[in-house]
Amino acid sequence: MAKKLRVGILGATGMVGQQYISLLEGHPWFEVTYVAASPQSAGKTYMEAVAGRWHMQKDIPQNVMSLKVSPIDDIVQAKKQCDFVFSALDTPVAKEWEEKYAAAGLPVVSNASTHRHTPDVPMVIPEVNPHHLEMVPGQQKGRGWKEGFIVVKPNCSIQSYMLPLALLHRRYGLRSVVVTTMQSISGAGHPGVASYDIMDNVIPYIRGEERKSEYEPQKILGTIKGDKFAYDESFAISAHCNRVPTIDGHMACVSFSCAKKPSREEIISLWKSFRGVPQDLKLPYAPEKPIIYREEENRPQTRLDRDTDKGMAVTLGRLREDPVLQWKFVGLSHNTIRGAAGGGILIAELLKAKKYL
Amino acid sequence: MAKKLRVGILGATGMVGQQYISLLEGHPWFEVTYVAASPQSAGKTYMEAVAGRWHMQKDIPQNVMSLKVSPIDDIVQAKKQCDFVFSALDTPVAKEWEEKYAAAGLPVVSNASTHRHTPDVPMVIPEVNPHHLEMVPGQQKGRGWKEGFIVVKPNCSIQSYMLPLALLHRRYGLRSVVVTTMQSISGAGHPGVASYDIMDNVIPYIRGEERKSEYEPQKILGTIKGDKFAYDESFAISAHCNRVPTIDGHMACVSFSCAKKPSREEIISLWKSFRGVPQDLKLPYAPEKPIIYREEENRPQTRLDRDTDKGMAVTLGRLREDPVLQWKFVGLSHNTIRGAAGGGILIAELLKAKKYL
Amino acid sequence: MAKKLRVGILGATGMVGQQYISLLEGHPWFEVTYVAASPQSAGKTYMEAVAGRWHMQKDIPQNVMSLKVSPIDDIVQAKKQCDFVFSALDTPVAKEWEEKYAAAGLPVVSNASTHRHTPDVPMVIPEVNPHHLEMVPGQQKGRGWKEGFIVVKPNCSIQSYMLPLALLHRRYGLRSVVVTTMQSISGAGHPGVASYDIMDNVIPYIRGEERKSEYEPQKILGTIKGDKFAYDESFAISAHCNRVPTIDGHMACVSFSCAKKPSREEIISLWKSFRGVPQDLKLPYAPEKPIIYREEENRPQTRLDRDTDKGMAVTLGRLREDPVLQWKFVGLSHNTIRGAAGGGILIAELLKAKKYL
Amino acid sequence: MAKKLRVGILGATGMVGQQYISLLEGHPWFEVTYVAASPQSAGKTYMEAVAGRWHMQKDIPQNVMSLKVSPIDDIVQAKKQCDFVFSALDTPVAKEWEEKYAAAGLPVVSNASTHRHTPDVPMVIPEVNPHHLEMVPGQQKGRGWKEGFIVVKPNCSIQSYMLPLALLHRRYGLRSVVVTTMQSISGAGHPGVASYDIMDNVIPYIRGEERKSEYEPQKILGTIKGDKFAYDESFAISAHCNRVPTIDGHMACVSFSCAKKPSREEIISLWKSFRGVPQDLKLPYAPEKPIIYREEENRPQTRLDRDTDKGMAVTLGRLREDPVLQWKFVGLSHNTIRGAAGGGILIAELLKAKKYL
Repeated sequence: MAKKLRVGILGATGMVGQQYISLLEGHPWFEVTYVAASPQSAGKTYMEAVAGRWHMQKDIPQNVMSLKVSPIDDIVQAKKQCDFVFSALDTPVAKEWEEKYAAAGLPVVSNASTHRHTPDVPMVIPEVNPHHLEMVPGQQKGRGWKEGFIVVKPNCSIQSYMLPLALLHRRYGLRSVVVTTMQSISGAGHPGVASYDIMDNVIPYIRGEERKSEYEPQKILGTIKGDKFAYDESFAISAHCNRVPTIDGHMACVSFSCAKKPSREEIISLWKSFRGVPQDLKLPYAPEKPIIYREEENRPQTRLDRDTDKGMAVTLGRLREDPVLQWKFVGLSHNTIRGAAGGGILIAELLKAKKYL
Repeated sequence: MAKKLRVGILGATGMVGQQYISLLEGHPWFEVTYVAASPQSAGKTYMEAVAGRWHMQKDIPQNVMSLKVSPIDDIVQAKKQCDFVFSALDTPVAKEWEEKYAAAGLPVVSNASTHRHTPDVPMVIPEVNPHHLEMVPGQQKGRGWKEGFIVVKPNCSIQSYMLPLALLHRRYGLRSVVVTTMQSISGAGHPGVASYDIMDNVIPYIRGEERKSEYEPQKILGTIKGDKFAYDESFAISAHCNRVPTIDGHMACVSFSCAKKPSREEIISLWKSFRGVPQDLKLPYAPEKPIIYREEENRPQTRLDRDTDKGMAVTLGRLREDPVLQWKFVGLSHNTIRGAAGGGILIAELLKAKKYL
Repeated sequence: MAKKLRVGILGATGMVGQQYISLLEGHPWFEVTYVAASPQSAGKTYMEAVAGRWHMQKDIPQNVMSLKVSPIDDIVQAKKQCDFVFSALDTPVAKEWEEKYAAAGLPVVSNASTHRHTPDVPMVIPEVNPHHLEMVPGQQKGRGWKEGFIVVKPNCSIQSYMLPLALLHRRYGLRSVVVTTMQSISGAGHPGVASYDIMDNVIPYIRGEERKSEYEPQKILGTIKGDKFAYDESFAISAHCNRVPTIDGHMACVSFSCAKKPSREEIISLWKSFRGVPQDLKLPYAPEKPIIYREEENRPQTRLDRDTDKGMAVTLGRLREDPVLQWKFVGLSHNTIRGAAGGGILIAELLKAKKYL
Repeated sequence: MAKKLRVGILGATGMVGQQYISLLEGHPWFEVTYVAASPQSAGKTYMEAVAGRWHMQKDIPQNVMSLKVSPIDDIVQAKKQCDFVFSALDTPVAKEWEEKYAAAGLPVVSNASTHRHTPDVPMVIPEVNPHHLEMVPGQQKGRGWKEGFIVVKPNCSIQSYMLPLALLHRRYGLRSVVVTTMQSISGAGHPGVASYDIMDNVIPYIRGEERKSEYEPQKILGTIKGDKFAYDESFAISAHCNRVPTIDGHMACVSFSCAKKPSREEIISLWKSFRGVPQDLKLPYAPEKPIIYREEENRPQTRLDRDTDKGMAVTLGRLREDPVLQWKFVGLSHNTIRGAAGGGILIAELLKAKKYL
């Protein structure tokens, strides 16, 4: 069996960093060998650094416990200890460091929003736009980077409807989408939302989230035009983003219209039969079926369906005629797995399978 | 001071019946003198009948405690003991009894869905369509009823956006609405939603609710055409109805378009300046301002805003451009007050002020 | 490999019945081949019978879906189709049927409270009093039963402290226990607790629960005296039982005194080193370590620790001096796994390992 | 009508400060004229200072909105603008400033824990130990203060059982108490407990809370011995303190023994008939009945009973024999009203009625 790739986690002590470390335990291709965090954690063992703030249900993996936490600026060390990195950095810090890591020769798979609209950076959902990785050589060339590059994951809020809409778009020409999300508290990280603010409450506002939800899909469904991505502006999305008192799982109520109205059977068949590149390549973290369509009248439900296929499947239901647009349905995905660390891992697996790593 | 009208509550032991009894305590015009319920409660005092299942925060009003519960079929007794009734009956029972009470000479203000689409029965939100009460004489004539009649209250799910949209419709011609509701558990009555089903969960389905939300507004905004209501089909509504883990308060995310696109200032001004018939008549249960528009970016919120003006005001916020339709906003109302018993009381007050009672 | 024992589930459509069916999927020794329920379910396939009310996170196991549901009174059929049964019947129904099944030659492992204090029926926690099964032959002889017998599982409320206290009792002589439980809603079954009753609330009362918590331990720690169990009255327990808004997991705050006060080290060592008969026999459903003692100052926590070792381990923490009694600690166990179906399965495994099945 | 006393709030922008400001709106004796907070708020109007973090359900009182926030160190200004202050400061800041304010001539009623065990500082529940205020002249003399002094309020965790136990202690000699609390999230202030930490969870640990609960009662029930308080060590308390997912209201399960065992009737009668000094003096914020004993088997409940008598009454229930100690019961009080700002206001009212203000 081939040697595992050595993985670094930037922002390793935060919520998303912990999720990466937890999900990567026992991964067949990757092994966490390097953890970087802010100055106050640097120098401690990882176990010391997260004492009292380890939020995962499983305990810290044995092999990560005793890793020494590096300061984020010690790129030389990083280069020695790992083959690529996942960035779980906060946006302002990501802005400063991700390019430096890439320039130093380390591929970066990022959860931060910093580079989502950087013209030469692919923003990838492996089932939707795996071909966007073809920008990588151009990105390296344009920037004079040898081995490093940056690939990013889109926002968690769109993951429960991006794939089903992308399939429709390619076949029928998506035109209009009105979506309302009901997003879990874990999407805000830790400490995130104060319990006093969200218990017995709905907060109909998440800073920046609606803009991301409306704009990111146009890049994801866009095309490579020379050294940059051309956005697809043939459709428009209106998003209402709400925080609701659930722990994990983002639900979306979606109404949409296409240039050519598909029948109910065509839509269901399109969704149920879809298998993407991650499935063809049998990537370890790929769900067997990327889309589960449930026939029950009251599914998907947040608590019941979020963990489907290790939290990587998108569960849909309730496809029905829409009196204003053409059709409407409900979508659900796990925001901290498919929508965060799991989605990042799947990108890295795709990068490796496609020889970028 | 005039003598108070004597009020009967049909379905007095259920959740909505309890809410009526609780809200009517100390009412300046009405006094509960009669309570009717199912056979197993009949013959007991009201206090005995609700022992162990009184769900209101205030204790049972002193004057209602010792009322003897009548069986629902003793209309002769009802006629002696009250001047009109609120019906909090379940739909199938309402179907059987509301007309009999009206035929016997007792006006019925109903929360049940039975007669919402009966052609000669007004479905009223007092700030929106008070003139629909003008159907009452026609209803009585057509059915050969002397003093009795039936007026109904629409579904709780539409109350957080019906008034603001009605104002827009009259000025700018509403065309399209896509609405997603996040509805509280109290909307399902008691025992209603099992805690095991809704904790840490969203259920994207409430039986019958979407159809009601899409169809009832067309009658409410319709007109009287001879002996029946003509529905207004100049606009279409698409509704997604969700149950979320909050106790009271229904929130709605609304996107809409009008025939003529209003400006942001026009909309806000229309909403803020509106005073309706209940306000002009200074009805006791009318909120001072029927619509509160909040400027904060994260309001309305369910727990913070539901009780505004004794739970009778509708709170709006976040009016912003919509990339698909014209505008979008968030609305909130208290489902068991404005959306149920409080809404019914306001109808009765309007009926009395307009001399129908 | 030996043939699996064929298992029947009485009360198969209820919450506990579903839990049995879900947990037994893929069990190495047992296979569900028979499901019995109330008359309205009888005759349907299991999938039809639970349509719209299957509450487990995993879907219905393939092999159970198409089983025909038998009426509870068809014992002849039961005898043909299974080797023993788990009873998840409600107490009144259990009273009527469990003895008839046993009389007909089917061993019954019961979750019902009916026979917990029947003098010749063992009430067993496999790590605490496995030797109580030695009553089985006496029970059979006394009642004239050949192959059938009844063994019961104690109440879920005591499972988070019964084992740690039993160990202390045998070494140091337990004298006094004051315990307050914070019990999850799943303990009440489905629909169980209404969401309107428990959201943002604590209900300091669960019918019958305190009496069970105070009395059952005296039988469990008692001894076989001829043809009946002698209760151990050398200690007294005072229980406060509360329902709190958590989904799964019962937590207990326990203060206790012994005849001889143990040191902190002695207690921790006793708990950490304990391995019981299920561990020695390597029973499939036995947790590797029956007691996990956590050193963090804020553990165990309901959501974080309930699933430890497939929900079968008891997690303890916060052992500290008690200003009134001698010591106090916090205990947690999963109420629907260790405290219900998982506990029953472990009893059945013990019965099989000990050749009673 | 006499002129109102001018009140300052130290730590005015925090959760407890906001509660003071909200509860004092329209107070007949007191008027908020001065607000002090940390340097980053100083210089702003109060409305600006709390923009986006006003957590009360009622809006900011009109008269406080435009008050300029003073820095905490401008005692000269404070002396000019108010007659006494409520301190809602965090403990370390309270340590630095409360004595300085008192030394400058401003009486301080404090919610901080800093001076709870300072030997010459009364810790007062007005219904329990109003006579402890007699220490004030001694405190002033001993410290050379003219008009200023410090009085403190005990911890919120003990308020639901301190009064009922105090009454028993005086009549029957309390000896032993084992108490388990289930405390709401608002007790931790804002942002306080992260929603991710407490949803679907119980945390059996609140830093410092158990020690406070066990120790503070001994001072409250103690006596003035010259220039200091003598603690009453004739009884011992063991406390388990838990955080549960409720918004407001602390519940306590209490087992206790007295030197002389009272009968059930004696206890209930003692509790129900009690009226204290605040009731005799008809203090504005005093509840009419300090203790409400409910006969229902499942009361008090957190959500249903916390607001009783404007959140100032203690609600008890379920008094029953205890198999280990003598009796057990359940108590409930509103932690941010009776347990925080409301309790402080009642102390100030008592001070005024007794001419200390």
